[in-house]
Order: sequence, then C-alpha cells, then structure tokens
Amino acid sequence: MRKYDLIIKRGTVVTASDAFKSDVAVKDGIIVALGQDITGDGANIIDAEGKYVFPGGIDVHTHLEMPFGGTVSSDDFETGTIAAACGGTTTIVDFAIQAKGQSLQQAAETWHKKADGKAVIDYGFHIAITDMNEDILNEMPRAIKNGYSSFKLFMTYDGLKVNDDVLLKALIMAKENGGLICVHAENYYIIDYLIKKFYKEGKIEPKYHAMSRPTVAEAEAVSRAIKIASFANAPLYIVHLSCKESLIELARAREQRLPVMAETCPQYLLLSEEKYEEPNFMGAKYVMSPPLRPKENLNSLWDGLAKGEIQAVSTDHCPFFLKGQKDLGLEFFGKIPNGAPGIETRMALMYSYGADMGKLSLQRFVEVTATNPAKIFGLYPSKGTIAVGSDADIVIFDPNVKKVITKSKLHENVDYTPYEGFEVTGYPVITILRGNIIVENGNFIGRKGFGKFLKRQAPILV
Amino acid sequence: MRKYDLIIKRGTVVTASDAFKSDVAVKDGIIVALGQDITGDGANIIDAEGKYVFPGGIDVHTHLEMPFGGTVSSDDFETGTIAAACGGTTTIVDFAIQAKGQSLQQAAETWHKKADGKAVIDYGFHIAITDMNEDILNEMPRAIKNGYSSFKLFMTYDGLKVNDDVLLKALIMAKENGGLICVHAENYYIIDYLIKKFYKEGKIEPKYHAMSRPTVAEAEAVSRAIKIASFANAPLYIVHLSCKESLIELARAREQRLPVMAETCPQYLLLSEEKYEEPNFMGAKYVMSPPLRPKENLNSLWDGLAKGEIQAVSTDHCPFFLKGQKDLGLEFFGKIPNGAPGIETRMALMYSYGADMGKLSLQRFVEVTATNPAKIFGLYPSKGTIAVGSDADIVIFDPNVKKVITKSKLHENVDYTPYEGFEVTGYPVITILRGNIIVENGNFIGRKGFGKFLKRQAPILV
Amino acid sequence: MRKYDLIIKRGTVVTASDAFKSDVAVKDGIIVALGQDITGDGANIIDAEGKYVFPGGIDVHTHLEMPFGGTVSSDDFETGTIAAACGGTTTIVDFAIQAKGQSLQQAAETWHKKADGKAVIDYGFHIAITDMNEDILNEMPRAIKNGYSSFKLFMTYDGLKVNDDVLLKALIMAKENGGLICVHAENYYIIDYLIKKFYKEGKIEPKYHAMSRPTVAEAEAVSRAIKIASFANAPLYIVHLSCKESLIELARAREQRLPVMAETCPQYLLLSEEKYEEPNFMGAKYVMSPPLRPKENLNSLWDGLAKGEIQAVSTDHCPFFLKGQKDLGLEFFGKIPNGAPGIETRMALMYSYGADMGKLSLQRFVEVTATNPAKIFGLYPSKGTIAVGSDADIVIFDPNVKKVITKSKLHENVDYTPYEGFEVTGYPVITILRGNIIVENGNFIGRKGFGKFLKRQAPILV
Amino acid sequence: MRKYDLIIKRGTVVTASDAFKSDVAVKDGIIVALGQDITGDGANIIDAEGKYVFPGGIDVHTHLEMPFGGTVSSDDFETGTIAAACGGTTTIVDFAIQAKGQSLQQAAETWHKKADGKAVIDYGFHIAITDMNEDILNEMPRAIKNGYSSFKLFMTYDGLKVNDDVLLKALIMAKENGGLICVHAENYYIIDYLIKKFYKEGKIEPKYHAMSRPTVAEAEAVSRAIKIASFANAPLYIVHLSCKESLIELARAREQRLPVMAETCPQYLLLSEEKYEEPNFMGAKYVMSPPLRPKENLNSLWDGLAKGEIQAVSTDHCPFFLKGQKDLGLEFFGKIPNGAPGIETRMALMYSYGADMGKLSLQRFVEVTATNPAKIFGLYPSKGTIAVGSDADIVIFDPNVKKVITKSKLHENVDYTPYEGFEVTGYPVITILRGNIIVENGNFIGRKGFGKFLKRQAPILV
Repeated sequence: MRKYDLIIKRGTVVTASDAFKSDVAVKDGIIVALGQDITGDGANIIDAEGKYVFPGGIDVHTHLEMPFGGTVSSDDFETGTIAAACGGTTTIVDFAIQAKGQSLQQAAETWHKKADGKAVIDYGFHIAITDMNEDILNEMPRAIKNGYSSFKLFMTYDGLKVNDDVLLKALIMAKENGGLICVHAENYYIIDYLIKKFYKEGKIEPKYHAMSRPTVAEAEAVSRAIKIASFANAPLYIVHLSCKESLIELARAREQRLPVMAETCPQYLLLSEEKYEEPNFMGAKYVMSPPLRPKENLNSLWDGLAKGEIQAVSTDHCPFFLKGQKDLGLEFFGKIPNGAPGIETRMALMYSYGADMGKLSLQRFVEVTATNPAKIFGLYPSKGTIAVGSDADIVIFDPNVKKVITKSKLHENVDYTPYEGFEVTGYPVITILRGNIIVENGNFIGRKGFGKFLKRQAPILV
Repeated sequence: MRKYDLIIKRGTVVTASDAFKSDVAVKDGIIVALGQDITGDGANIIDAEGKYVFPGGIDVHTHLEMPFGGTVSSDDFETGTIAAACGGTTTIVDFAIQAKGQSLQQAAETWHKKADGKAVIDYGFHIAITDMNEDILNEMPRAIKNGYSSFKLFMTYDGLKVNDDVLLKALIMAKENGGLICVHAENYYIIDYLIKKFYKEGKIEPKYHAMSRPTVAEAEAVSRAIKIASFANAPLYIVHLSCKESLIELARAREQRLPVMAETCPQYLLLSEEKYEEPNFMGAKYVMSPPLRPKENLNSLWDGLAKGEIQAVSTDHCPFFLKGQKDLGLEFFGKIPNGAPGIETRMALMYSYGADMGKLSLQRFVEVTATNPAKIFGLYPSKGTIAVGSDADIVIFDPNVKKVITKSKLHENVDYTPYEGFEVTGYPVITILRGNIIVENGNFIGRKGFGKFLKRQAPILV
Repeated sequence: MRKYDLIIKRGTVVTASDAFKSDVAVKDGIIVALGQDITGDGANIIDAEGKYVFPGGIDVHTHLEMPFGGTVSSDDFETGTIAAACGGTTTIVDFAIQAKGQSLQQAAETWHKKADGKAVIDYGFHIAITDMNEDILNEMPRAIKNGYSSFKLFMTYDGLKVNDDVLLKALIMAKENGGLICVHAENYYIIDYLIKKFYKEGKIEPKYHAMSRPTVAEAEAVSRAIKIASFANAPLYIVHLSCKESLIELARAREQRLPVMAETCPQYLLLSEEKYEEPNFMGAKYVMSPPLRPKENLNSLWDGLAKGEIQAVSTDHCPFFLKGQKDLGLEFFGKIPNGAPGIETRMALMYSYGADMGKLSLQRFVEVTATNPAKIFGLYPSKGTIAVGSDADIVIFDPNVKKVITKSKLHENVDYTPYEGFEVTGYPVITILRGNIIVENGNFIGRKGFGKFLKRQAPILV
Repeated sequence: MRKYDLIIKRGTVVTASDAFKSDVAVKDGIIVALGQDITGDGANIIDAEGKYVFPGGIDVHTHLEMPFGGTVSSDDFETGTIAAACGGTTTIVDFAIQAKGQSLQQAAETWHKKADGKAVIDYGFHIAITDMNEDILNEMPRAIKNGYSSFKLFMTYDGLKVNDDVLLKALIMAKENGGLICVHAENYYIIDYLIKKFYKEGKIEPKYHAMSRPTVAEAEAVSRAIKIASFANAPLYIVHLSCKESLIELARAREQRLPVMAETCPQYLLLSEEKYEEPNFMGAKYVMSPPLRPKENLNSLWDGLAKGEIQAVSTDHCPFFLKGQKDLGLEFFGKIPNGAPGIETRMALMYSYGADMGKLSLQRFVEVTATNPAKIFGLYPSKGTIAVGSDADIVIFDPNVKKVITKSKLHENVDYTPYEGFEVTGYPVITILRGNIIVENGNFIGRKGFGKFLKRQAPILV
C-alpha cells in the first residue's frame, strides 16, 4: 500500500493565521502530513511552486434548482457544483426550502433528491422555514441532530415572511439544541409599500426594484433580528448584509459581544446601483434582494470585512437566464426572478480585489472564504483549513494568472455574469476534493455525484 | 375699565431660558405685561415674593375615563383635571381612542362628550388610531385641520397593535399635513411570547407583568419606529420612554439630527422594579406599560433629560382603584388594568427631585414640563411660556414648602399614589388658568367646565 | 419724572426660548417692562413693527489693539467697538495679555488703559496667562474677585505656550474660586515641526500657514485639555473650535456630561481653505490660527451648533491691514500677523446663514450670539437676554433688509473683510446700549468712552 | 543521518486559527513535518497525548538587569530567561535603554554584554530612546537594519520623558525605515503634580503611587500618541495598556483603521488596586507603572483582548526584591523601584484565566501570547506559530495539571510573586527551543548562553 495518494509540492500553504512553504500529503482523502520534502512512492504529485495552497472555498449561500416566482434557478446541483469547483469552491451549503405544509424532513428530502447523486462537490443544507407551527418547531431538534443544523427565516417576501414570534421561538429552539438561525433581514412593510406605490405610478423598470428596497429597510430588520436574538440569548447569522447602515447595527452588536455574525457577498463589495441604469432591460441582471447599493457602501463593507465586523463571504448564487426567466419581469420589476450568478467567481474576485489589492491579508482571505464559514456552519475542522486530519479539500491558486472574467469562459448555466469584463489577478488552477483532483486548468475532471452530503455540527462562534 | 385683571407681584418668573424678578400683569386671560412695580387699579393682586412664577404645567399624556380591559380609568375629566390643577398643571392632552369601526371624528366626538363641560383646565386630544384603513388615513388631514394634530399608534397590545405599514403610512400622511405621530413602542411578539409562557408556568403575580415586558422589547420598537420615520422623513414622538436601552436608540437618532422626540414620566425617573415585590398584591399598583425598570435606568433617564436627549416629561396618568379594578388581575397579571395615577404629583416631583437636587436647571425644569410639550404639540406660544401675549396659565410655586406626598392629600380619584411617602421640597401654591385663580393653597376654587378645548397646530421640533 | 426713557413698540422680542410680540420699555438703562401697548409720556419711541428685538450681541473673543509679531491689531477700543456696535454687538470680552514678568493685575491695567474712556460698548477682560508661576497662580483668586473671572491659556505659539502642568494648576485654581479657563487648543509640536519643515523646503506662501496647522493638531489639544480638565473636575471653555475632529472630542466629553463648552466663529462656519489660493498674497487675509479648514468641516460645525454641542459663536476679531501689516509675511507665512476682522459682521452673518436659512432656530441664534456667552462668562442676567431687570442692550434687527457685505460699508479699521461679497438677508438697524441708541441705520451716534467695564461673575454652565 | 531529531507525538497542535491532532517532527531546530503517525529512527520522542502543543511563548516586554532608581532589576539574562523558559516562554524582547549621551549602537552593545552568553532562550532588543537628537534620529535606520527594529519612547518619568516632537520625528523615521515605535503612555504633568502634592501632604505609602497615576493620565497620553501617529501615518504600539479609558481610545483608533496596536499584561487582567492596601509595606510588591487599577477595568481588558482590540499580552517583568530594593521607598513611594515579576507565570495564567475559563478561545490564547507578538515585532514566521519551516520553539502544555502559584516553586530571582496563591489549571510541562528540550517537568535542563540574539524585521500589522 502506498503511503500517500497525493503530494502537493513546494506551494505556500495558507491558513487563517499562517502562510508557509510546505508540501502537503494526502491519504484516503485526508491531509495526513505537512512537511518539507515529503516523498511517497506511487503518490500523485502536484507541483505548486510559486502557487498558493488554500483550503477549498466554502460557499454557504447558494440556491441551486430553486423554484422562485414560477420559474426555477437555472443551475442544478450538477451544473452549479461544477461551476463552483471550477472557481475553487469545494463545499456549498444550499437552502432546502420548506414548502407550505411540508415538514422539515420533507423539505430536506426534496433537496436531497435534487442533490444526491448529482453534486460534484460536498454539500450541506440549511432548512428555510416558511411555514412554522408548533410541530415544525418541535421538529427542529431532530433536524439539527440529522445534520441540518442551521435554519433560515425570511423577514420579508410574501409567502415566506415570518413574524417576530416565529423568529424568537426558532432562535430559542436552535440555541437549546445546538443550531443556528440565519435571517434574510429586510423590513417587509417598507418594501411592500414601495413596490405597490411604484407599480401604481407606472415605475416598472428594473431600477425600481432597487429603489423599492432602501438600505433602511435592511438596517431595520438587521437591528430587529439582533435585538430579538439578544433577548433569546441565541446566536444569529445575517445573510447577505449589503450596506453600511446594516453594518453599523452589526458592529454595535459585536462591540457588545453579542453572538451575531454576518456574511456579505462579492456583488455588494464590487457592484453598485449604477448597474440598474444599463439600457434594454439589462438592469435585470442585477435584480436580487437586497439590491445593489449606492457606491459609498462598498468601502464600508470592505472595511467591515477587514476589521472583522463581517465574518464571511458567500455568493447567494441564484442564476436566472435573461432570456426566458429574467424577462418574466419585462412589464414589472416585481415579476423579475430575484437573483444572480456568482458561485464560480467568488474566490478569484475576493483574492484579486481583496488580498491582491491589500484590502485583506492572505490569511483573512482564507478566513472569510473558508475557515469562518466552516466554523460557523459546523463543518470545521473537517473543512475550512489545511491541517493534519482535515479533509483534503484544497485549491491550488496561481497568483500570477491574469484573466478577464467573461461569461463564455464560465461554467455557470446562465447567459450572463454580473462581473463581465472584471480583470482578475490570480485564479484557481487545480481544485481538489477529498484528495481527488476535480478541476485542472479550468477543466472539470471530477465525477457527477462524487459530492457527499455533510451532516453539520453546532456552530462555533467567530 | 380696569387696566389689568390680575397682577402677580415680586415673583421670580422662569422661562425655558431665563429667570428674573418681575411682576406679571394679566388682562382678559392674557399676559399683557411683565415689569417692575406694575400697578393697576382694581386688579387682583397676588404676592409672589420668594416664589417662582412658572408657566402652567402641560401634561400631554393622560387617560381620563378611558375604557381598558373591561373597566374604566377612575378619573373622569372633572376629577382628573381638578387633580391636575391642584398639582400645577393647566393643560392636558388626552388620548381619544378610536373604537373599532369608528371614524377619527367619531373618536374625537366620544371624547368631547367626556370632556366638554367637565374639564376644569384646558385640554386637547390626540387621536389614538386603532383601526386603520384607507378611509381613516384619508381622514387624517381633516382631523389635523380640526386641531387634533397628533395621533398615537400602539406597536403592542392585542386589538390595538398596528403593523409597520400603518405606522409608515400614518407618518407620511401626518408629515404632509402638519401632524405628528406618537408611538407606544414595545415589541408585541416578545411580550406576547412571555405573557403566554408565564401564564403556562403559573407565574401570575404582578411582578411577572414587568418581567414579560423586558427593556429590549421597548428598545426594539423604538429603534424600528425611528427607522421607519427616518424613511418617511417624518417627525416622531415616542411616548413614555422608560429605559436606557431605548434612550440609546433615541440619542443615536438625534445625533444624526433625525426629527425624533420623546417624553419620559416621573415613574420611570423615580421608581424601579423592586416595587413589584410589595406583598399582598400591592405590586399591582405599579402595573403599567412599560413597567418600572431596573434601578440603573433611572440615572440614565435623568441624564438624558438634562442633556436634552429627552424633551418632555408627562405622566401617562391612568388610575385604577386597587379595590375593584386592579384586583381584576388577582388571578393573572394579564388581567390587571394597566396604569397608575400621577397627574397631580408631576410638577412637585420634577421640581423637587430634578431642579432642587440640581439634576435640572430651573429653566430646564420649565422646558420639559411646559415649554417643550407646548411646542411639540402645537400649543405654543399660547401655552408653555410666560411671555407677553401668551395665555395667563401660571403656577405660583413655593420652593420652600416641604411636604410628604400621601394619598389622603391628593385629589386624584383613586385609592393610592405610587409616590406615597415621597418627600418634596417645593409645591404649587396657586394655579392660574387664563388669568383665573383655580387653585389656592391646595383648594380647588375653579369651575367645572371652565376648561376649553384647544385646537392644536403643527408641531415645532425641539 | 417720566415713567420710561424709551419704548420699543410692536417688535417681535426673541429670547433663547421664546419669540413674542411685545413692546419693551426702558428706564435708567434697564428693561423695566415688556407688554402690549405700553405708553409713557416723554419716552423716546422706536417703532419696531416687522422687526426683531434681539438681545444685544455679545462677542467674547476679540483682540483690540493687541501686539502681535511686532505689530498691533489695527482696531483699537474706539474703532473696534464702534464697528461692533454697528454690527449689533453691545458687549465684548477682550483678552488682556500678560506680558512676561507682569502680574495679572498689571496685565489688566494695561488693557484698562487701552479701553477705558475709549470703548463705546460695554467690555470685560479675560486675562491671558503667558508667564505662569506660583505667584501668578496665587493671584488668580483676586483677579476673579475683581471681575476678571476667566483666563486664557495658549497650548501653542512660541512664547505663549503653557505646559500641561500650568493648565492643570490653573484649572484647579479657577474651579475653586469661581473662575473659568479658556484654551487655545493646538498641539505646539506638530505645528512647530511643520513650520520648520515648510520653511526649509521653501514653502513660504500663505497657504502653508494652513497646511502647517492640521486639524489633528487641534483635535489632539482639545482632547488633552478636556482630559486634564476632567481630571481637575473643572469647567473648560475651548475658544475658536474650527473642525470636525475637534467637535467629535467635544461631543464625546459633553455626552459624558463633562463641563466642557466651546465657541466657534463665523469664519469656520462660512469660509474654507480654498481661500488660501487667492493669488497675489491675498491668501494672507485668511491667515489666522486655527486656519480655515477643508470644506467638509463647515457642515459639521453648523450641525454641532444646532444640536447644542457648540455653545457660542464669537469672532476672534483681530484685524491687520494687508498693506503694512499682513505683508510683513511676504517672505514667509510665519511672519504674517495672525488674525482677521469680523467684529461687525457676526450678527448679520449668523442670522442670515443660520437662522434665515433654517440651520438655527431664531431662539438658538439668540442663544449662541448672546445668552450663552453671557451665562458662560458671568454677565447674565444683566446681559444676554431681554427680560425685566436686564440691561437694555438691544438690537433692532430688520429681517427684510438685503445687503452685500463689502469693506467700504464697514467700520472696522482695516483694509479688507474676509466676507467681501457675502449676501445677507437681515441686518441690525438700531443698536441700543443700556437704553441709549448708539447706532441708527448704520450710523454710529454713540459716544466715545460710554462703554463700561464689566466685572464678571462665575460661569454658569450651559 | 537520522531523518528527525525530535518527534512530538499525539498532541493537539494549536495555532492562532486551528487546533488539530498531529505529530510534529523537528530537524536541525526547525519544524519540518506535521502529520499523523510520523516515525523516524533515532529521533527523540515526546508523548504529548492529552496535551496541547503550543508555539513557545513570546514575551516582548521584559526588563532584565535594568538599572532603575539606583538599583538594578534582580533577574539577569540568565535567571530571567530560565524563569521564562520554565514558564513556557522561548523568546523575549528586552529593552536596551539608551543612557544619556549614548548612541543607539552603544545602548545595544551595553545590552548585548548583559545577554550574550547568558540567555537560555532567544532574545531581541527594543531600543529605548531617552536622549534624542538629530544624530540619534539619523542613527535609527541603521539600528533597524541591524535588527533592532523597534524603539520605545517614554511619555513620562523624569529623565526619560520625551516631548511630542521627539515622538513625531521618531514615528516618521521608523515608518520610513520599517521600524515600529512603542510608547509608555502616561501624562507626565498630571503625575508629577500628584506626586509632589502627595509628598507635600505626607502621603508616602505605596498606595499613593497608584493614586498619583490616575487612569486619565494614561488615557490622555494614549490618545495623544495615537493622534500624533495618525498625523505621521505611522504604526504605533502601546505598551502595558492598563485601563478601560485607554482601551476606549485604542478601540476608536482601530475602528478608524489606524495602525495602532497594544499589549496588556496579566497584572492588569488579574490584579486590582485593592492590593495596595496590603499592610506592612507589602503594597510595594505592586508598585509598577501604570499601577494596578480599580476592579471594573479588568473585565474591560479581557473583553478588549477577546474582541481583538488588544493584540498581545506581555509581562513588563521587572523584579525587585522586597528586602533591599523595594524598601528603598519605605519613606516615600516615589523611591520604590517600579516593577514586578511575571515572566514565568504569564502562559499558565493566561491559559487558566483566559482559555480555560472561556474568556479566550484556545486559538486566541496562542495568538496573543505568541503569534501576534511575533508578527508585530518582526519575528514571524520563524517564531510565533507551529508551521513547517518555523523554529521548533514549542511548549507542551498539560491542561489537566492543577497548581497553586507560589514563590518557592518559581525560578524568578526575587522574593515574591504578585500571584501568590493563584490557582491555575494547566501548566507547561516541556519547553523546547529550536528543537532542544530546555525545561522538563519544571526543571531547567538547558544551557546558559544557548539563547540566540534575534535580528528582527519590519512589523506586520495585526
């Protein structure tokens, strides 16, 4: 029997605290050794000289094959995870969305049917609770035990929105059973008021989508969720935090050492509301919730990310084709399916615009794209770092590659990318999942269904 | 014809900015002169040597003859306003509460029936909107025009609570028409959760009333109301702010120069939650919403009042007899009628524990008990100051009187006072309404029905 | 004997809290009556219909006939106070500057020689301590008793600068004897470093004056003075606060209820550093310390003034002729006499750009230009308000006059005004000192030496 | 030749971000491999089952053999570093103190004479500049190049204190040459005032030492140093931050992303001012500067350490015998040599009261005791972490050992420990320096002079 299956030679290993030159040896999908000049007969060898050896990216906010407004997000668990892998992401946590009347178990099963046997990278599920009652509440402990240890509640959207009592009870139940509540935080009533107002006034173009969801609506809900969580003494995770006003609420809470955590997304760090002015309905490309924000928010978010106020960067990947999907809303922005692609571009964008530009240290880049997401969502230490005993989920990243992001080179199953034309310095060149090379030089060479479902543990607060 | 009807001699006149020795002359109910050595044949003369000449107190938060939980607050517009007058208050603004299905006009009329011909001091009405719809919204401009220029919305209480959309629309409508929205800010869902939980656990004593309404529930609602008002770009007034956590939200908003104002009440400045431990159901005396708070809040509120973060002090006077009313809740705190008396003791308590103890300057005492309430609620400059042209609503206040507050000496129609045993230094000795002495040395000598309804103007922001 | 010497009819009297139509009657220099339709045989009558009746302006920061860098500020106590009077100011507090080796008494006497018999409006003196020792410290109580109840310490300037121990001891001594310490707060060492650096680099133009005194140098000294005062538990007054960074320090201190107060000046509210770019050495017009600041500071200061974080507006009037004085620094900005005129334009500018534009209420305008300065510097209630018993120092202000400020129309003894071309809405039309009209329609009709020296009391904290 | 010199088996390796079970293999003093089941013939084997494998502690604030007030700190580089090693510390950075008239090079040489050939662990030197002039300033770049890349300036102490210009120039020079300025931040003048005052009043006991150095004196200097550094745009390191007031200044600066860093010490986290009440002059044990603080500061510091506001924990080890040294100040606290021992107890105290009690995560414990100090002071990645290629400076730490700290068991050359009687859970059992076991089970088995001088690099900001 050979000692190692795979040896990555001469790369610079980066963790959330360190960066050092080391070989990395893998056996049976596990990192079993770090060291100088590791040898092992029969092992597959990767030469990583001049390259970074990062933990595989972890994207804890994706929506694959998700029904929305009469259509379905265009990446399924095969296409979506291939795109993720090509972008250097080796684990996703997708949202299993409870349909009305379903149990949490049924929601999970529905999503297992979408993912099992198809995903090419490892995956877990949050369960999005949309129809809470006493039974569902009581089902939460079992769901947590079964590895669905995080739940999402929507504070907005018709048909999904929960009232504060549901949030409160879910927080208490999660806390008592080692689970974590995630919230989509926007104030329903402000948004509903504006959507109806704009519609009545004939303001139907995509840009009114953004105008109907002002930053104060998000900040209000963030503030409210934090206060309710603080009452429940329960940890809280805020998804897709998008603006300075919300960040202020988050920072205040963390300053008081409340167990509140948040993610932002590349789109909120790199794109701003001017995009809605693209003519010919092209603003629809950016119709997502929360929407893109005024430019001054971008620096605030980078700042918050660097300072540690924001803990993670995910994508909220939720793609819809411009033709045939986004255009459902030609007559009214309210009918445009919400969401945009991003699962493939996250690591390159965050490296290039964050680490390479000096906004984040290399270690912080790893922390927000992998280590923290793994810790927060109960995947650590199997996932999220490069350490002896961890899964050999690794991305070999070449900091010298220069590319221009363009739809035609991406694997996402959708007809555009919001980052068209973005130049990046640095790109994943090899993606390794549990010791297996699944992407090499931009080509997916893995296998449909190789991804494993991950039963997740209790959150580690970061 | 005599030149003056009344001359107040040798007192120290105090306004919100000044204090000076001056005579005050009144004709036809109006202050027509301030000066040294004013004479006028035939005028009634009051010797105010050694005494303060304050503007009559304005209490903008009272509940007279108000139905609540199957009973009715025990002071009607006669007894309640007599008590107010005896305590140095010459104007109240009471809440006309819309019953389900009523128009605002009908709510106002209902309250006019209670007050007209009975009140002994001047009065206005806020309208408490409890059943909002398109028609009611559209009725608001006319109500404002008719002098009901402020509206209260409850963010909590079954049957009264409004959702954020109602608050938002009301704010916009008020703003556009020169009105002002007041909110009772507590998070309904947190409170509802706790009440039900305590009930289930057999925790039925009065102290659980306080425990069911934690400070965070208030702070959440304060924060939310502020954010919605900031979105609406409309002024907002927070009634009975009771705790530090809420004050922090208020102070942040004012620091950003949002047009948010707030009152607190003597009970939140002087009493704390230990009171609920009084045996034999006596904790019920303090069952009000928000409840009395942990002691550390008191200093914060005094501080906020002195610094200008809080603008006004009202009473939320809402008395219920211990025997026959409060005891409806013997079996469950949720059945105790909410409220406590205070209309008569406000001025003496605020002077004694505020101005006399150096926590407030004399001028600030006048500002928070009279000038600001008058400005905020559209009564200024007729009411709220001592100036040429203003109504001669004046209280002659003797700073040297020492008293112990005790139920038997008060005129409130209720069988207790929360301030039993409180020592005060300084007390009103004469109360003058529009030039008429209505209280002298603790004796009411005015006339039932002498109080006039006040049509109020748009708010002046302070 | 006539009852009144002067009656001002039908104006709108404004105090720091109120505004009301009232006649004002004066006898023997004192306001003896406010009232409707005041009559009095033989009284001089002023018709103030449609005009404001403000308390006379109080300017607590002037430098008349002050030696500086080998020259002397160009307004003496006659020309300077005539200009002040024409601008609606009826009291100044000037700085008697202790020369090396002088006692405080000698410093005061030196200034009395300049002012007594010359000033046309009332005046007091702060004493600027530049040569502290045990004797001087011990002389402070007597100075306070003699009415020189405030002292200024310079934290910068060669030859004037005091170390922190002097500040500390002075604060303690002032506090214990009812005095007030004022500081010119700039960090000496940062400025000294930059001046020398610029000089060495040949950067000698006026704009380098501004660049040599960065905002952080001011903020540092403000912060330090506040902390030392907080240690001494003594009140502190910061003169000519000029920027946002300093304001933040001030606001933090007041939020903690430390007894810190500050003034700003019209130049910091209305002018910004671009002025230094005026060609042909004209930037020298604005060479003062602190210098004009980057534009973003202006709104912050207006904001702080409106919110109450800043308590007063003075001028730091310290004029030097461009020809013959400012041009001493043609070869090096360090030789330009520091200072600019402003004593005459303060009231009109503050009314026009503050009250008329809605940045300050009318009452707040009065508060910061008269009432607060009077209270802080122990002149209240004789000065600073319109109340029975106060000195009849009054300015009749016509809010409808429109003017363009231009040097040729001003009375300041200097060959420019920094406000050249500024349009104002509203201007003083009559200035009254102790019942005597000293300015009418822009013409000074008072009398040299009519101004009285004011013995000042202990500060009232505002 | 054997493959490895040393293998540490089955321990839990902890870095600033991770914790994982791994063997650690060492060759030629370097960590060359981490892995499962590492074998290597002839290697020395340590069984670390059930124990933590931490990076060796780095103590960047020690004073060995330092002259102070006519005496010399009682640990020299032999006794002091033995104590350090026994406590789990493998690197110190001591202060080479420039004597008046000395060059920096001379100061360094003086310290080399003390340390070279004596120290048993690795060491570097900061240079404390006490006699700055143009020459010294210009010598700084060479000192940095020679590995003395950090400098300390005293803002207080007679004979050591520098003015702000020295600080400013040093900051600029350090910044431009890859150095770092450290400050002892206390306001000289406040302290000097109080010392003289107390002396005059006969207040000579040790407790007056603490009273003569109030927290505001520290906070003032911290604030000033930060503002000057922000002007210089240079990084700054604050030594021995001891109180909440200072922490607030630090946190504000970091919130604005200024490059300011700070250490605190175990004494400020664990001891408070009550200690000065120990009778019989025993308060002298705690006479250090800054002094122990009121109790409420302790939690604030723990909080700031956990939140990341404070970056490092050092000791300020500076021991003096009670008999013969501390007692120099029997007649006056001002004569007590300032300082206390702590070099040996830091790791155990921080683990026990920080990590074990849940105030710090394990990773954060490593970060503040080793990783951050190494990064900040240019020792990383050779020192401060456990990674391939780093020096094999390792402490094997048994979390299950329970001990009571007592002088008789410690190796510090002094007759007391401030932590007498403190119970600890967890203690270093083996200390390894560059692969050599130098302490085993409390016995020092290393060699005098084995410690190497470390030339340090530029700071990495954390």
